Amino acid sequence: MTVEIICVGTELLLGNIVNTNAAFLAERCAYLGLTCYYQSVVGDNGARLSDTIKTALSRADLILLSGGLGPTEDDLTKETVASVMGLSLVEDPASKEHILQFFKTRNREIADNNWKQAMIPAGSRALLNANGTAPGIIIEKDGKTLILLPGPPGELRPMFLEQVEPYLLEKRQAAIYSQMVKMCGIGESDAETQILDLTSSENPTVATYAKTGEVHIRVTAFAENEDAAAKLVKPMVNKLKSRFGSKIYTTDPDVTLEQSIVELLAGNHMSVTCAESCTGGMIAARLVNVPGASAVLNEAFVTYSNKAKRTYLDVKKSTLKKYGAVSEQTAMEMARGGCISTKADACIAVTGIAGPDGGTDEKPVGLVYIGCSVAGKTSVRECRFTGNRQKIRESACAEALNMLRTGILEYLSQTKFT
Amino acid sequence: MTVEIICVGTELLLGNIVNTNAAFLAERCAYLGLTCYYQSVVGDNGARLSDTIKTALSRADLILLSGGLGPTEDDLTKETVASVMGLSLVEDPASKEHILQFFKTRNREIADNNWKQAMIPAGSRALLNANGTAPGIIIEKDGKTLILLPGPPGELRPMFLEQVEPYLLEKRQAAIYSQMVKMCGIGESDAETQILDLTSSENPTVATYAKTGEVHIRVTAFAENEDAAAKLVKPMVNKLKSRFGSKIYTTDPDVTLEQSIVELLAGNHMSVTCAESCTGGMIAARLVNVPGASAVLNEAFVTYSNKAKRTYLDVKKSTLKKYGAVSEQTAMEMARGGCISTKADACIAVTGIAGPDGGTDEKPVGLVYIGCSVAGKTSVRECRFTGNRQKIRESACAEALNMLRTGILEYLSQTKFT
Repeated sequence: MTVEIICVGTELLLGNIVNTNAAFLAERCAYLGLTCYYQSVVGDNGARLSDTIKTALSRADLILLSGGLGPTEDDLTKETVASVMGLSLVEDPASKEHILQFFKTRNREIADNNWKQAMIPAGSRALLNANGTAPGIIIEKDGKTLILLPGPPGELRPMFLEQVEPYLLEKRQAAIYSQMVKMCGIGESDAETQILDLTSSENPTVATYAKTGEVHIRVTAFAENEDAAAKLVKPMVNKLKSRFGSKIYTTDPDVTLEQSIVELLAGNHMSVTCAESCTGGMIAARLVNVPGASAVLNEAFVTYSNKAKRTYLDVKKSTLKKYGAVSEQTAMEMARGGCISTKADACIAVTGIAGPDGGTDEKPVGLVYIGCSVAGKTSVRECRFTGNRQKIRESACAEALNMLRTGILEYLSQTKFT
Repeated sequence: MTVEIICVGTELLLGNIVNTNAAFLAERCAYLGLTCYYQSVVGDNGARLSDTIKTALSRADLILLSGGLGPTEDDLTKETVASVMGLSLVEDPASKEHILQFFKTRNREIADNNWKQAMIPAGSRALLNANGTAPGIIIEKDGKTLILLPGPPGELRPMFLEQVEPYLLEKRQAAIYSQMVKMCGIGESDAETQILDLTSSENPTVATYAKTGEVHIRVTAFAENEDAAAKLVKPMVNKLKSRFGSKIYTTDPDVTLEQSIVELLAGNHMSVTCAESCTGGMIAARLVNVPGASAVLNEAFVTYSNKAKRTYLDVKKSTLKKYGAVSEQTAMEMARGGCISTKADACIAVTGIAGPDGGTDEKPVGLVYIGCSVAGKTSVRECRFTGNRQKIRESACAEALNMLRTGILEYLSQTKFT
């Protein structure tokens, strides 16, 4: 089945917002095994929207539209689709009741134009919008399916995941099962080279995604039911596990690297602290973004000045003088000192030159030392990152989390087997 | 002049990457006064790309294409455009030399397929790619203009800003001048209401953009030369200045809120520290992202546990017991304590409930207290943010920076006039 994505909104044409809906819908369609050849963006204009829908209908079986379902006169998607498909609009009682309740529970007056949102094309199916007032709509006619979704990502995403995906799978008479093998400490091209023989597999499919410091591999299978699909996925995931070993931090698509670290620490009653110079709080901020981080992190330091490194981390004056603040030795003492001063089991320390100034021939911009101390054992890695200040800091943050995870795993493996 | 944007790449159709190029090009086109009615995304497929280009040519004067200019066989944009426009490909000596030098300075072997990138449609103009090997290309034929740009944003953006914009302005025989009035501490709808009478202005134009905790207003004018355009912009910016006063933190499009704060502090020889609980280092990380932040920030704390709040910030045990960690009183003591323990002139402190757990009827998720201490004077604001954990923390971070800026300005105005 081929799909086409149309995102409606003048704010997209003006570049006021980035089209994350298109990326989300495209990724979910790929996941669902639908083939997408075109995406379009068009403004809140009846004639142009009508042309775009007609073109899409001539090329695809399924059209996903986002945006233009709101209460204002500018919102034309539903009216335009109904007109193109030759359908009249009728009131949907369930949607009307939902709008009424939505405003009632928020103690807000309902402006008259809101009732427009309860009108849907005759014979179509309304999708309840748990996070807003405009319902989604599924239209099936003349062998084509059109699915209209609200524009705000906070409304579109749950509606697609919870209502549209089950509908599409039922339509395909297929069940889907997917696992996400998430790794750190390996480059994208390295990972791809190691699975060249697997990527031609058709069921399950194997797809690679890269983000700063991480590589994710998604394994997806279709079958008559979820159990059967899971049975197709499992041996492939096992192959990936045996190839990538401890570089894999999770196979749960919803778990982040920082979450896996927090869970690893919490599960072993360990605590962590951070001693950040050039990353300036980014590592701590990522750890604290995990709900329940308070179980493993009590405090963390941004030690930007030499004096702060001495005061809070007990880095020796002589070390700073002899080797400089950006050095293996300083990173080592920062990591050790962080553990000692906070009594944490682990400390991740970063010192580097994020630029754009401050680089020298000997210590260029991008040079970063990361120290990791776990239960008294400390290691330091010298890294050379590229890009602007923000990119260098993000790369350092990702590598620091990778080192922290590796350090904890090494410690745990030793305590368990010795 | 109407423009259409076509982004080429299978990775966009699969949702592997978000289409930031489309947003960037759309925003720049709006800035340049070009009208965009459609954006399209199409994969690396000759026939479909050809159709998309023909459709765009039937609708617009100027077509911007991104992606598909690389050395591989999949990269088809140039070949397809040449075929649609009836042009042959010829070698561009300058591009060939650039590719040679690019590899030479990096000590890398040149694979044969790289020479393909030196071929451009006959009669077209090559745009030097300072950050890669594939040149951009400008084609003018039959009253239409096609501009081909490399897909990587790090190559596309500088090429567009430095070479395409001057070309388009010359084509329009117009000069452009723009200022960005950036504000914090005001909501988008509030700001828009205050400038309703100004947004209908045609030259200069007035456009509003919102981001977390900030509102930006861009004033842009066209004229025969830049000075004349600047003269049109200036009175409008002055109107905005008189309406929004100290809510404006800069009129320079490249200056961020955190940068304006770092510059304000540095210019007045003041220092700052942070005492972060639920934001967990985000505020410090934003300040440290400003080059030269070391002049104003020596250290900062993530004090997540009660004990850390007592140890590093000297928050009283009785305060934590009586009012709780998330309270006006704790935020007050955190801000004061941060200044005292680090001898900084200013401290911004945040304590709140970011969720998803930990909320109660009395202290719900989203409740955040922000304390700001400047030169001994401390104030606290109670905020109630919505959204998920990450969104609540980002909102708290933005509001904290706003309070810090306001606190510094108040202090400076008092020291200057008393």
